[in-house]
Amino acid sequence: LVGITDTSFTESVRVGNIAKDAGAQALVLAHAPYYPAAPVEVLSYVEHMAKELPLPTFLYNMPSHTKLVFDPKTVRAAADIPGIVGLKDSSANMHYFHQVQELCRDKPDFTLIVGPEELLAETVLLGGHGGVNGGANMKPDLYVALYNAAKAVDMDKIAVLHKKVMDISSGIYTVGKYSSYLRGLKCALSCIGICSDGLAEPFQPFDKDERAIIKQHVEELGLTK
Amino acid sequence: LVGITDTSFTESVRVGNIAKDAGAQALVLAHAPYYPAAPVEVLSYVEHMAKELPLPTFLYNMPSHTKLVFDPKTVRAAADIPGIVGLKDSSANMHYFHQVQELCRDKPDFTLIVGPEELLAETVLLGGHGGVNGGANMKPDLYVALYNAAKAVDMDKIAVLHKKVMDISSGIYTVGKYSSYLRGLKCALSCIGICSDGLAEPFQPFDKDERAIIKQHVEELGLTK
Repeated sequence: LVGITDTSFTESVRVGNIAKDAGAQALVLAHAPYYPAAPVEVLSYVEHMAKELPLPTFLYNMPSHTKLVFDPKTVRAAADIPGIVGLKDSSANMHYFHQVQELCRDKPDFTLIVGPEELLAETVLLGGHGGVNGGANMKPDLYVALYNAAKAVDMDKIAVLHKKVMDISSGIYTVGKYSSYLRGLKCALSCIGICSDGLAEPFQPFDKDERAIIKQHVEELGLTK
Repeated sequence: LVGITDTSFTESVRVGNIAKDAGAQALVLAHAPYYPAAPVEVLSYVEHMAKELPLPTFLYNMPSHTKLVFDPKTVRAAADIPGIVGLKDSSANMHYFHQVQELCRDKPDFTLIVGPEELLAETVLLGGHGGVNGGANMKPDLYVALYNAAKAVDMDKIAVLHKKVMDISSGIYTVGKYSSYLRGLKCALSCIGICSDGLAEPFQPFDKDERAIIKQHVEELGLTK
């Protein structure tokens, strides 16, 4: 799933085509216009975009980063557009997510997933389709196991696995004084040996002291390969 | 003054170079990273950007569109960076603007201007350097006259001209149900014959009925050439 966060229509389509050529399976569209847009404008943008994008596309609700909320009615209307296959919601607002679920009851194939891994258990317990979670870059089997436990309503297993997810969240995403999630995740991935901790400007990797803390947490949390 | 609103460092520099080649005098940098950035990250971005941009550059504080506020201390620190020549503030928060003015008292050549024309009078009365106002695209002489009246502390003249500015604001920027400022301004400019009312997606020009209202207001407000 490749994210599209560009503010421009033309550039967004270009990212979609490059993603397809690179082997992506689907796209995640965080509509992020510079000028705040109204629901009817957002919907017409999604309609036009779906015609031009070369892969199945999820809407990406990420108001803290885009300042835009995909209105629940807009999501339901988008579910009728060919090529729009679901919603990834990273608002961390489960009231919003449940509203979308209610409106999409007649569209069971329209996939509703959440971003924040801290909400994966309740999402699946209450009928959501799953998560695209940052922590799964470090330890995918944990998040798959939590998904399966929630799907099976195995509350004892959920309690254990949800606790592990919360420990990763507290241990990896709260180090340093700012941009802790982004820098913590990239630093941990680098400690594990999955990728470098390089970030696009204006973000900088953690310094030596912060990296030492992350490294210790990575080991204590059993995140090493 | 050409605006840079791209989220990417490389693309932002590219816009700056294109603007210079096209004859721009200065740039206005609305730092708009997708991930929310902390003040120290914003400052390092501005420092790096100033080294690469080919023209004098204003910071552009536009939190409703970028979700980022240039912290007053960041503005003061940026005033020491070669190439950063001022701040345009479109927050409409005069408390913020006065805080910045206080911090920049020892830098009288660092230019402090506002975006919202509804705040031009008080900005200049209280020591600000002026405005870059949307309405000045339609009727520049009115805004120059208001600036001059405020500079001369001619309160009678200010009252008359400020009222005209407010009438334009109410008449042109409040038509239609959404995106009224942007669509109203472009529609009025098109009625006057200055440019077309075309907008980048997801925005659409006003329809026939909304255009008729704008056209009437343009005539009543004396905005025709």
